This record gives sequence, structure tokens and C-alpha cells, in this order.
Amino acid sequence: MTGFTPHTMRIALLIYPGFTALDLFGPHHMLAGLMPARLDLVAATRDPVTTDSRATVVPSAAFEDIEPGLDILLVPGGTTGTLAAMRDPATRDFLARQGEAARVVASVCTGALPLGAAGLLRGRRATTHWLALDLLARFGATPVAERVVEDGNLVTGAGVSAGLDLGLALLRRFAGDEHAGLVQLAAEYDPAPPLACGSPTQAPAALVASARRHFAGFVTDAEAAVAATVSLA
Amino acid sequence: MTGFTPHTMRIALLIYPGFTALDLFGPHHMLAGLMPARLDLVAATRDPVTTDSRATVVPSAAFEDIEPGLDILLVPGGTTGTLAAMRDPATRDFLARQGEAARVVASVCTGALPLGAAGLLRGRRATTHWLALDLLARFGATPVAERVVEDGNLVTGAGVSAGLDLGLALLRRFAGDEHAGLVQLAAEYDPAPPLACGSPTQAPAALVASARRHFAGFVTDAEAAVAATVSLA
Repeated sequence: MTGFTPHTMRIALLIYPGFTALDLFGPHHMLAGLMPARLDLVAATRDPVTTDSRATVVPSAAFEDIEPGLDILLVPGGTTGTLAAMRDPATRDFLARQGEAARVVASVCTGALPLGAAGLLRGRRATTHWLALDLLARFGATPVAERVVEDGNLVTGAGVSAGLDLGLALLRRFAGDEHAGLVQLAAEYDPAPPLACGSPTQAPAALVASARRHFAGFVTDAEAAVAATVSLA
Repeated sequence: MTGFTPHTMRIALLIYPGFTALDLFGPHHMLAGLMPARLDLVAATRDPVTTDSRATVVPSAAFEDIEPGLDILLVPGGTTGTLAAMRDPATRDFLARQGEAARVVASVCTGALPLGAAGLLRGRRATTHWLALDLLARFGATPVAERVVEDGNLVTGAGVSAGLDLGLALLRRFAGDEHAGLVQLAAEYDPAPPLACGSPTQAPAALVASARRHFAGFVTDAEAAVAATVSLA
């Protein structure tokens, strides 16, 4: 729109069974502002992938279709499916190989955990969903309770909806503020959350406790998945 | 999560070629908090549908699979594809028939235009993407420059990202504030837009002018599509 020519950019967003659609489509929307970049949804195979809310998305590429040297590699989060992705050797290998050669490695929400399992968080400042934040230290990262954390070529976002802010942060980096502003205005991104409870510091303590109870099983399972993969990372 | 039992709820979100993925997956994420409700992505047929950013989504239902009497019918927006959907008799008929019988009819962004073409905005307060807001009057609606507009059983949202706020508004209506708060906290929806330009009142005038120039062709085409469908509505 504003004169930059990103024709050769290549972006790959990982999808896997049980990923959270909004983790993906927040940044995907913003990064589509870099088109005519090549923007792939990549999975282990080209079979359709079902999200944690039972939507079905078709990959545009399989692991073997993606040449290393991506401009952006991004991993969305989820719950059970994300832990399975962490434990999957093919996914870990894909992330490690692509992450090493990518200009920017990014995650939204618990998408940081597969990055950790692939050894891509070591020595870095990083964030993830608030319920999983402490786990990042196990992968050698410094957990940071911020919405978007940029440490060199690693850009990580907090839970789910932070992907919109992360997508715009990536757009600023690759296309500049004027273009990012145009995409933000076109997306009418002037949010107005109806309730004041979108973060554990903002929400009433009883609500935070309720969320912790609701996701206690996931956190326990995540701790086990981290323990199982940390020695491999 | 908090004791309500929405087992019998039925929600259908329309998808069509060229819809904007984030318009859909913002509210879809929030409404998934109503599960085990039945939450369908419905299209004319069950063939995969490609979004305006070239992602491919598989419908879970075709028009004929959806019995009237939905709890929520929701239409996402887009640009060219949305105008084609407005002009498509089968889509208009589906929306008119389902909209008449639904407990709530909702749209995000320019998804309000197909609702207008189906006669569902007549005499109502409604909103849409700021670039298309004036067009709603042609369908007998009162355009309102707010992020989410609730007029009885019609709930309309502004551009793209307003779908997150609209989804939470629907969740409050159907499940109450406590549950909506839990979903908002789980989605870590405490947004932090990187730039102060997410609405035409907030953005610098030059940026608004740039967006108007960029989308001038779409607005002209939208005016033609409204003119062609308003007499049918």
C-alpha cells in the first residue's frame, strides 16, 4: 500500500490439531498486510487440521514444502494439542531447523512452548499465556509478563488475543509504522473490552482463582510435557 | 465453566468466498465459550472456502443443513467477496429465512451489508466498518458510529477487530458476566494496540485519507451492490 516491496518475503504459520484459531488469525490478518508476501499455513501434512474450537483449516503447505530461510516463522498456541505438538519429534525438528534460519521467530500464547521444546528460547526474554509463564524458565528463557516481548529475532506474545498486537509489532518491524498504522486503521483496531478482566493483574482475584482451577489439569499436563521435552531441546 | 447449561444452543456463522478470517474467528473464539453449544460454520455448500487472505476453511454445514430457530446467526465481513455474497440470491434467502427466526442476528464489519440486503436492518440501529457506515441508511437502518451496537435482537460490530468485543457482548447476553469474564481472562483480552490509529476519529487525518484512497474502489463497488440489492431487501 505504501510503496515497500515485500514480494520475496516468506512467512509460515504453523498449524496442528488443537491449535487455537484466534491465536493464528490475529497475526495472520495483520501479516496479510505484507502481501504479496507468500504466507503459508504449514502443517506436518496437507490434511485438514481441526482447531480446539472444532473449526477446520486446510494447510497450504506441508513441512517438506518449506525451504529454510523464512522471514517469519510463527507458532500459535492451544491446550492439549499444543502439548502433543511439543512432544512430536517431526514438529520439534521442523521448528528447530526453520527457527535457526528464520529472520524472525514468533509465537502467540502457549505457542511459546513448542518453540522452547525446539530449543529456540534458550537465553532469551519471552512471554506466553499467563497460566504458563513460569514454565518458560525450564527452557532457559527469562519469563516476562508483558503483552509482546521482542528479544532480537524472537518475538513472543501473551495469551490468545495478544496475537493482534504481536502481528502489528511484526508489521512495524517489516513494513514501518505508516503501513502498520494503515492496517490497524483498516482493521478498526481500537479495542473496547466490555469487562475489566483481561489479565490476571486486572481481573478480580476470585476470577483469577476460577481460571486457575479451570485450567489446573492443563497446567499439570504442560509441566509434564515440558519435563519430557526440556532434555531434548 | 460456571454452571449454565447451553447444551441445546445452536450457533451458525456464515462463511463465503473472500470473507475476512479475523471477522469470524474473533467472535468464534468467544462463542466457543458457550460450548457444548453446536457451533457451525455454514456456507452455500460444504466445499472449502477461501478467505480474503487466502486461508482455506472447511464449512461444517451447508445452507440446507441448518434448521431455522438458531440462537445466534452471525455474518463476518470482507470486501469484494462480501459484495458478491450480498448479490447472491441463495445467500440472501438463507439470511432472510434464518434471520427472521433467530434469537440473535449479528454481524462484524461489512457483514452488516448482506444482512441489509436480506432486509434484516430495516428500522434498526446498526454499525459496520467505518468506511461503509453511511451505506446502512440505504437499507433503512440508522447508522451508529459505535464499536458494538445492540438493538433488540440485532447486534452489529464495527470493523474486523470489533468482532472480539461483539463476541464477548454476545457471551454476556447468553451466559452472563461471570462466564464472559472467565473467557475474556482466558483469552488474555487486555489489548495494547501499538499505535493510536485504530479508528477514523483517533487516527491522523492523513492516514484516514490514505485509507479512503486505498479503499475507494471498494466503497464505489459497495455503493453499486447496495443499489442493486436494496430494492430486493
